[in-house]
Amino acid sequence: MSVAGAAKAKALPLPLDAPRLYVDLDRVQANIAAMLARARSAGVRLRPHFKTHQSHAIGRLFREQGVSAITVSSLAMAEYFAADGWADITIAFPFHPGMAARTARLARAVRLGILLSDPAALDGLEPGILGAVDAWIEVDVGAGRSGARPEQLERIAATLDAAARHPGLRTRGFLCHAGHSYGARGPAEIQTLHREQLAKLERLARDWRARLPALELSLGDTPSCATQTDFAPATELRPGNFVFFDLSQWQIGACTAEQIAVALACPVVARQPERGELVLHAGAVHLSREGMRLGERTVFGLAADARTCGWGALRPERALVGLSQEHGRLAAPADFVAAATPGDLVWILPVHSCLAADVSAALYTLDGDCLPLMPKGGGSRV
Amino acid sequence: MSVAGAAKAKALPLPLDAPRLYVDLDRVQANIAAMLARARSAGVRLRPHFKTHQSHAIGRLFREQGVSAITVSSLAMAEYFAADGWADITIAFPFHPGMAARTARLARAVRLGILLSDPAALDGLEPGILGAVDAWIEVDVGAGRSGARPEQLERIAATLDAAARHPGLRTRGFLCHAGHSYGARGPAEIQTLHREQLAKLERLARDWRARLPALELSLGDTPSCATQTDFAPATELRPGNFVFFDLSQWQIGACTAEQIAVALACPVVARQPERGELVLHAGAVHLSREGMRLGERTVFGLAADARTCGWGALRPERALVGLSQEHGRLAAPADFVAAATPGDLVWILPVHSCLAADVSAALYTLDGDCLPLMPKGGGSRV
Repeated sequence: MSVAGAAKAKALPLPLDAPRLYVDLDRVQANIAAMLARARSAGVRLRPHFKTHQSHAIGRLFREQGVSAITVSSLAMAEYFAADGWADITIAFPFHPGMAARTARLARAVRLGILLSDPAALDGLEPGILGAVDAWIEVDVGAGRSGARPEQLERIAATLDAAARHPGLRTRGFLCHAGHSYGARGPAEIQTLHREQLAKLERLARDWRARLPALELSLGDTPSCATQTDFAPATELRPGNFVFFDLSQWQIGACTAEQIAVALACPVVARQPERGELVLHAGAVHLSREGMRLGERTVFGLAADARTCGWGALRPERALVGLSQEHGRLAAPADFVAAATPGDLVWILPVHSCLAADVSAALYTLDGDCLPLMPKGGGSRV
Repeated sequence: MSVAGAAKAKALPLPLDAPRLYVDLDRVQANIAAMLARARSAGVRLRPHFKTHQSHAIGRLFREQGVSAITVSSLAMAEYFAADGWADITIAFPFHPGMAARTARLARAVRLGILLSDPAALDGLEPGILGAVDAWIEVDVGAGRSGARPEQLERIAATLDAAARHPGLRTRGFLCHAGHSYGARGPAEIQTLHREQLAKLERLARDWRARLPALELSLGDTPSCATQTDFAPATELRPGNFVFFDLSQWQIGACTAEQIAVALACPVVARQPERGELVLHAGAVHLSREGMRLGERTVFGLAADARTCGWGALRPERALVGLSQEHGRLAAPADFVAAATPGDLVWILPVHSCLAADVSAALYTLDGDCLPLMPKGGGSRV
């Protein structure tokens, strides 16, 4: 693949016969560098979450900047990245007994971390069957999804006890994901939630340091990681979305529009000037069904200016206000609608880049390269 | 592949290490037979939409019941089904000039229909470049998406004129998709909307029969096709979703829960009894992000009873009330939560089966076969 920094003389291969998800590798590299600098300056390990990109090529850009430990959200994804040489992988998704055989196989090839979110997660498994595996205890710092709340001392103790019964399992510490920070609006709200999660991690450290002297603490939400500078007592950051960012993060205040590194190039397929709309080839199968409230309406993407090669400034007044399987309805000012014609391209920034990448087969670079993404269904490659 | 009717003695391969989308082929075949009977009884052609299943194997079940003409929503999907022997295919997605080369190539292999939704859809193309292609003029019968409204006589005339300038293009008639019927609740509302769309098709027939003596009229929404019996003056039905149905159609009143033919088998990964919830391995990457209002809440799926092999009765009191990339939060009665343990399976009926299939790599039959689905990105195979 070409990497960022190469000459960008090529124009896009117009016209497109279908939408394509493009990635700006300069922005990707800048996003990685900024997050690494933030982690280094705070003295914490960066273990980025690779569910956002699901791409060997993007993964290698992290490796070139010195990252060696990663996070994934499924066994299939762990196997996919292990096959590209990643040797220190945390599966930050709750382990259950159905995952045992595949986990044990992978743990023989790489240093593998699993997440224990329920005291019964290991029930019924023969002790030692997983082999040498790192175990993280999931704690809920406010998202209300999975894991024990820090004050659920009995539940945490039961989970630690269950792990201790399995020779080979090394309990590293506690892992949390403050998913509720995605509802924040602006730096002040992010900071408030971030301080709350740090206070909960402090409590965990106080309560369990005696039992786990080398206790580690891992947090992972992109809004906190992308805007905060103080992470103590955390020892590890696992953000993922920051590599591409998206409109959700822009709305939260975790990035600028200029940091968003992916955009869908969408052919105009019909003009509906009486409604002030263009119909685009841009549906749920290209962007996912993720929407967000913006003012009085729900939008599924916002346009950016077209440039000779790639996209430019965000244009919030050109909004994807309806989405079906293959169609998107772009509401836009009359002059923009009037100037468009079928086959023209409109660049759409996604609401949620992780899901836009997940529904895509490949990412196209602005240099014209095609980067395949992890195939659906994953599959063992180790 | 095994087909329905074979003995169903096999149990599912428990435990699962990840969710799987299962299909009940008996229900699929019954759904196909019922829709075919409805079309035959009304004297109209059934040209089912294959975007719902995107599967060669499911397509063959249609062929075995006598279907020979199909609808798809993209060039890639047309190529995928042409490669499996389908020779009469309508791409019911607006044509634009960027699709010309690939359309012309495919039109040399199969009888191909394209959709003209904008008078400028053919602008800039050399006359004759597409070869022999059927053209359908899209009309908007109330969905407010793409196409001309029946009263936009000038726009329709301009589109017909544009088509007439292209030797090889055979204008078949008008095509509509009453997508607004998906907002209906109950048979009476569906019937009202259906009669409105038929009245609009009547008007088109009156206005344009002189210019198009062999004019055909094609309609396509599953709610109307699955519940109505009178389709005149339509000559063709293009429903797709009915092959699987889903909770959206159940809520509309277009199917019963017993007709829903796909369900996601989801491992329980954590119990959160204090919230009355189970966390399932069931996220937006498995079900899509599609939600629906049910009472006071938005749900992303509802559970059905587990049986030895497959799923049973719908359990609306066990509802997927939260969805992230890989996790689903199932709110359920306390006794159900208390009885569950990590690794157990919960069957989830999807809100939108087309999108659940689109985000999946394969469908699993209750006999244990794996039916691959069209790979993301499609790709020419003709």
